[in-house]
Amino acid sequence: MPYLIVTYDIREERVNKVRKILKKYFMWVQNSVFEGDITEGKLQKCRYELLNTINGEEDSIYFYSLENRLNYRKTVMGVEKELTGNIL
Amino acid sequence: MPYLIVTYDIREERVNKVRKILKKYFMWVQNSVFEGDITEGKLQKCRYELLNTINGEEDSIYFYSLENRLNYRKTVMGVEKELTGNIL
Repeated sequence: MPYLIVTYDIREERVNKVRKILKKYFMWVQNSVFEGDITEGKLQKCRYELLNTINGEEDSIYFYSLENRLNYRKTVMGVEKELTGNIL
Repeated sequence: MPYLIVTYDIREERVNKVRKILKKYFMWVQNSVFEGDITEGKLQKCRYELLNTINGEEDSIYFYSLENRLNYRKTVMGVEKELTGNIL
């Protein structure tokens, strides 16, 4: 299953909506970063919800898709957010 | 050469310093995301500079290291920042 790193830069007035959507599909790992395995079908749904929420001329979301979760090495400097129990 | 995606969550008072350091080594692609190829030696230097700048109890920097730049697929929703000419 592909593993995604999702980063976003969203205007204040929409950022909570975007976070709520991303939180349904991914784990929240840093202020503006989510991660997780996702099926192609769920990713389509997620993208559809996001497209209906963001302003395409002001907001930005990047999807970095890796073949699987073994395909990268992550190192953390400073505080690391827990992968579970993220409260919005 | 490894390809890195670097995301950060830094307190306001230190964020400009952190950006200036990252800008020397990577391309600035989104508000809190940098990307780029980097040698192991340069990465060590970059990490050393960052360690001397951040507060390890409040700030956070994630380094996602991929084997090379062909090892992921990036899709952008909304605005895409140019990979060159980022002005701090």
